[in-house]
Amino acid sequence: MERNVYLKKASLEKAQKILLDRFKDYELKTEKIKTKNSQDRITSKAVYAKKSAPDFYASAMDGVAVKAQKTNYASEREPVILTKGKDFEYVDTGDSIPQEFNAVIKIEEIEQISEKEIEVIKSVPVWHNIRSIGESVIKQQLIIPVKTEIDVFEIGAMLEAGVTEVEVYQKPKVGIIASGSELVSPESEIKKGQLVDFNSTMLELSAQNWGSQVINYGIVKDDYEKIKKNIIEANKNNDLTIIIAGSSAGREDYTLSILQELGEVLVHGIEIMPGKPLIVAVVNGKPVIGIPGYPLSALLDFNLFVKPLIKSMNGLEYDLPTKLKAKVKKKIPSTAGLKEFVRVNLTEIENELIASPQKRGSASMHSLINADGIMPIKESKEGIFSGDLTDVYILKPKNKIKNNLMLIGSHDLAIDKLIDQIRKNEEKFELNIQAVGSMSGLVSLKRGECQLAGAHLLEPKTGSYNISYINDLFRNEKMAVINLVLREQGLMVKNNNPKNLTGIEDLSKENVKFINRQRGSGTRVLLDYLLKDKNMDKDNIRGYEREELTHMGAAVQVEEGTADAALGIRAAASAVDIDFIPIKKEKYDIILKKKTLEDPRIKRLIEIIKSQPFKNAVKELKGYDLKNSGEINIIE
Amino acid sequence: MERNVYLKKASLEKAQKILLDRFKDYELKTEKIKTKNSQDRITSKAVYAKKSAPDFYASAMDGVAVKAQKTNYASEREPVILTKGKDFEYVDTGDSIPQEFNAVIKIEEIEQISEKEIEVIKSVPVWHNIRSIGESVIKQQLIIPVKTEIDVFEIGAMLEAGVTEVEVYQKPKVGIIASGSELVSPESEIKKGQLVDFNSTMLELSAQNWGSQVINYGIVKDDYEKIKKNIIEANKNNDLTIIIAGSSAGREDYTLSILQELGEVLVHGIEIMPGKPLIVAVVNGKPVIGIPGYPLSALLDFNLFVKPLIKSMNGLEYDLPTKLKAKVKKKIPSTAGLKEFVRVNLTEIENELIASPQKRGSASMHSLINADGIMPIKESKEGIFSGDLTDVYILKPKNKIKNNLMLIGSHDLAIDKLIDQIRKNEEKFELNIQAVGSMSGLVSLKRGECQLAGAHLLEPKTGSYNISYINDLFRNEKMAVINLVLREQGLMVKNNNPKNLTGIEDLSKENVKFINRQRGSGTRVLLDYLLKDKNMDKDNIRGYEREELTHMGAAVQVEEGTADAALGIRAAASAVDIDFIPIKKEKYDIILKKKTLEDPRIKRLIEIIKSQPFKNAVKELKGYDLKNSGEINIIE
Repeated sequence: MERNVYLKKASLEKAQKILLDRFKDYELKTEKIKTKNSQDRITSKAVYAKKSAPDFYASAMDGVAVKAQKTNYASEREPVILTKGKDFEYVDTGDSIPQEFNAVIKIEEIEQISEKEIEVIKSVPVWHNIRSIGESVIKQQLIIPVKTEIDVFEIGAMLEAGVTEVEVYQKPKVGIIASGSELVSPESEIKKGQLVDFNSTMLELSAQNWGSQVINYGIVKDDYEKIKKNIIEANKNNDLTIIIAGSSAGREDYTLSILQELGEVLVHGIEIMPGKPLIVAVVNGKPVIGIPGYPLSALLDFNLFVKPLIKSMNGLEYDLPTKLKAKVKKKIPSTAGLKEFVRVNLTEIENELIASPQKRGSASMHSLINADGIMPIKESKEGIFSGDLTDVYILKPKNKIKNNLMLIGSHDLAIDKLIDQIRKNEEKFELNIQAVGSMSGLVSLKRGECQLAGAHLLEPKTGSYNISYINDLFRNEKMAVINLVLREQGLMVKNNNPKNLTGIEDLSKENVKFINRQRGSGTRVLLDYLLKDKNMDKDNIRGYEREELTHMGAAVQVEEGTADAALGIRAAASAVDIDFIPIKKEKYDIILKKKTLEDPRIKRLIEIIKSQPFKNAVKELKGYDLKNSGEINIIE
Repeated sequence: MERNVYLKKASLEKAQKILLDRFKDYELKTEKIKTKNSQDRITSKAVYAKKSAPDFYASAMDGVAVKAQKTNYASEREPVILTKGKDFEYVDTGDSIPQEFNAVIKIEEIEQISEKEIEVIKSVPVWHNIRSIGESVIKQQLIIPVKTEIDVFEIGAMLEAGVTEVEVYQKPKVGIIASGSELVSPESEIKKGQLVDFNSTMLELSAQNWGSQVINYGIVKDDYEKIKKNIIEANKNNDLTIIIAGSSAGREDYTLSILQELGEVLVHGIEIMPGKPLIVAVVNGKPVIGIPGYPLSALLDFNLFVKPLIKSMNGLEYDLPTKLKAKVKKKIPSTAGLKEFVRVNLTEIENELIASPQKRGSASMHSLINADGIMPIKESKEGIFSGDLTDVYILKPKNKIKNNLMLIGSHDLAIDKLIDQIRKNEEKFELNIQAVGSMSGLVSLKRGECQLAGAHLLEPKTGSYNISYINDLFRNEKMAVINLVLREQGLMVKNNNPKNLTGIEDLSKENVKFINRQRGSGTRVLLDYLLKDKNMDKDNIRGYEREELTHMGAAVQVEEGTADAALGIRAAASAVDIDFIPIKKEKYDIILKKKTLEDPRIKRLIEIIKSQPFKNAVKELKGYDLKNSGEINIIE
């Protein structure tokens, strides 16, 4: 079978220009709709007032309508007495002014002296407090120019001016097709080897948010004729057709050939990462865009190409997301010739906004929702160096980002409960976490990428935790250690322990497949200590070289049967419902600079760790001892 | 009848605090909804992954699945040959890896040598290009904490993790009642003396935009029992009840008494302008808010009180609108003891953002949609002085505001066509206008509030326009004059000219009611010149002292019959379909500093003025001559 190669590769900017230039004069149809339903729509011609408002003389105040002449010479010393029916009438704001009167005095400025009489102590000019005909809007006045986005105010202004119907552009119609034989819809029964198609839902919602109407054509199997049939239909019935997946150079990637057959391919492949396998094509004068199947690639390409296209079709400007300058504290290598988009967390440390990149390469949505921003790295650069100030497109509101606390280090399930409790309390800060292992966390703290490190590093000689590692790294800095939890480490094994494992010694048995944790993680330190203590050789452990990044990751491998055992915490084993053989009780601490204890957010954080709701939430997990939680030790 | 006075007046900040503190623990009910429909909803508990993704070993690339061991020692000089079926299988991204293989080589990195055989020139490590089980998300992992607003990414992350239903807070229910016997709904037949209720539509849409569901109870007449019945029902069925109008101190303003009868009134009256007559009350533990009836007051109070309340009920932070610092070029007086909110236009002049306040006191929605921002003036200040830098909450995107061109001066209907043409062309700038009359426009240009002034000021001695006024004001500055149009001035009279007016002389007839234009307007200058020329006394003209601000305003007074004649342009008379007696052809010019001609936006503006589409649009109006349009004169 023939395989596609990228023949029409372009840089991001060039590909965007090719697409937008080609369709910049694309004309949408127009329609007349009710004004009250016109929010977020775009006027297709100027709107003029149909009537004046008010169209009668109206009182601008609650008060009395009078003949202004009657109040001449009124003063506190010589008040003028007016008689109801003859000289005045009560009027409320908006009331029509009876023809015989020509001014209004505010209710606060008169004195009622009898049921029929009032006293006035100041003269009023003619037309005082009277809204003139057309004061708000005058018949035939321009209300809204053409190509204007209608919002609440515009709707009010049109209704005020008697405009109850408005001519607008039809929303661009977007047809979305998801291709892939391995795909199933999220709500169906999912078998092994199948992937949930949530891309089409995300793209559908995004396209709607940007002002289009979407027809979702659902999932189409990897079959040339079926895909072709769907593209033809979507192209006929929509302004813009999206086909998800099938745009890279894979075996069953038919999209390119089909689009070459049906129309003209303008771009195939853009020099960015993620998001490289994009196709821009024209079929019957309408755009057809092939979007890659990896969720993060799909979202990025959709934002970079489809968003500006929808905005442009609507005649609106495309606003780039807000960007901030942030400092990077370590080298971030990048691939030459590719513009990279890296997810970062942001936090403010010593009045500087710091960006710490997340692990790259993963296609995880979960990592995306935990990111605060996207950092572009230009194709011309070799990467970003420590100390560089760089742009970050933010994904969360600026003022929220400024209140982020950042924890980097070992992951623990109690940290999730802490994050949740902070939200529950509606605290004025968030706690973000990057799970990279205990040692990496301490190194990040040293670099100034975070305020907090999470670690459970055993010091074999003394049996204590973390202290000697902190002393090694932070020689000239006073540090503080807050205990989060004590927890049980042990062997996570399959349900009912089919291999009858009893302890570390059994890991060298020939029929036991182990899965390890990464270097620098506290659990790895513990394993290596235990092996040394028992004079065991790591080369005799099958799977020692296979690394997982978290307790939960290791637990799931055991549950799925790709490993027989892993070292990890009881809570992880319990969460996925596998067995657990306890080996050691250990401390999990939060480490920070002593001076950071002054931060009011840290004070609140310690209060929360000590609070009953947090402790109750952690107790629902298994294997935790909270007797020292919130205790602070200072290392000077 | 008793009249209400403001007994529980409070400052803005105090009133907001009273409201938000009282309801800060208000608990909404929760509900389970489909994940795909959960956009913009708030989680009522933490969401954990239901399954790992992927839950099988999946290829991360399009390529071939191989046994890694077979590629050991492969090099360009000594390639390894692999056989399909035995040593490798083709896989696409996302495909499940057959059990016998443990690495994937990218399609670009292999060489196909026959149908069954490929060549590999580099060894690959075990697990290379294979997505591990749980790489994206691990079963039981925290996906979203409680009280988190769900967006597209979160929906993707939940679906990826097998979460197809999510528990969220119910949207706060808001019941909206509009009170007022003079009100009618926008789409009904409207009689004189009736006002269109568009407030409830604007508040309904706003409340929906802020994350609530609305029941609109429609219009209720000014009747104590009817209003009371509606408030009781709305209070029972909603979390929050809004009653529009009836919150000031007018004759038929029952809301206060009803709320005192049904519950507790916490605030009545806030020290701001507009927006003073607000009521905050509690009925059966739920908030009931009385909103004033003036549209701008209603919108302001709704934004200041109801928006933060809805956000708070949803457990979300209330983000103030974006503010910018802008310079003010003239004194803006303010009332002591009241915090004022003034609509302003914004434009950038010589790298400074300049705010020019709009005419105050008007309740016009039309003026609001033409404003770029709202400038608060603190109650402690006597106002803002020329040269002050002050905060402005912006109503339009920042980058759009930076591209505003500001024209202050006389209004002409051709200006509306110019504004519309700019939008039609999708130019990168907007033209904003404040209609204040010719002289005021020149003074604003002198002060540096705008780049452009619009004027048609007759110089009686020479019969020329604008030049001598410009020379007087701008002695040391080179100026430029761009002709926009030549146009006909004359008497606008009722249809069929019932008073048989033939010219200016007839204005002093006893049975003729005139309506004038404001001092400083070009039309007023023309009138005074004509009177002097004909030796007429203004005291003999009935209505000389009644002033309208625009041609259209004067035309509408004639059409409505409140005046028999006004001086104005033919286009205005034609727009409202009244008769016109021509008197003089005059020039309407755009005046600017000569150096401003260098601004690329001005160059485009002149091109547009000269363009056929603009000229065609103006020709549809009546009484214009475009032979000099776009001509530039320099005054040195």
